[in-house]
Amino acid sequence: MEYDYNLDGRVWLEKAGVKVLGKGRVELLERIQQSGSIRQAALQMKMSYKQAWELIKHMNTHFGTPLVETHRGGKGGGNAVVTPFALNLINEYKLLQTKFREFLSSNNIELNK
Amino acid sequence: MEYDYNLDGRVWLEKAGVKVLGKGRVELLERIQQSGSIRQAALQMKMSYKQAWELIKHMNTHFGTPLVETHRGGKGGGNAVVTPFALNLINEYKLLQTKFREFLSSNNIELNK
Repeated sequence: MEYDYNLDGRVWLEKAGVKVLGKGRVELLERIQQSGSIRQAALQMKMSYKQAWELIKHMNTHFGTPLVETHRGGKGGGNAVVTPFALNLINEYKLLQTKFREFLSSNNIELNK
Repeated sequence: MEYDYNLDGRVWLEKAGVKVLGKGRVELLERIQQSGSIRQAALQMKMSYKQAWELIKHMNTHFGTPLVETHRGGKGGGNAVVTPFALNLINEYKLLQTKFREFLSSNNIELNK
């Protein structure tokens, strides 16, 4: 259905006033999980390895527990693992996203009445 | 009540895929309404007159109907009036904001369980 107006928005998680998790970081975590590689995930998201690494370091620090763990060496130069803590957060965020989409959608109908 | 995590977010209105109204623009409109002056409103929001005027022009164009009308001349160099169309939009947006705050708040409780 086509509406005249369209509601959109973003939700994110803060800890001690600092943004720690949003749509982009969840996508980064998911891509790391799928590829096992920070470099691959960064490439897929058109960001530099440094940017991706800074985001991960930021999350690891501010959550106070690691979201991504890296294992050096081996074939292909080591791999990255998304921790169970992070996987749980991803699920929570996706649940929230679904509810948020429903919120936007129902309010969109109201707005276009 | 203090939580470990805090949910935050933004909602905005799009028309034909273009952002036309969000928190900042609503604040700008309200300040214009209160002061009767784009220059005053811009000053209060620490933006330049040009920035404020560009935002207004953008809204007037994309909504297809004016949100702010300016009357030149007179004492103090003319004044700016927020149209009934814009006042109605402001009300709609504030209602939405209230519902969105409720959404964030109830999901915050869930998240911190």
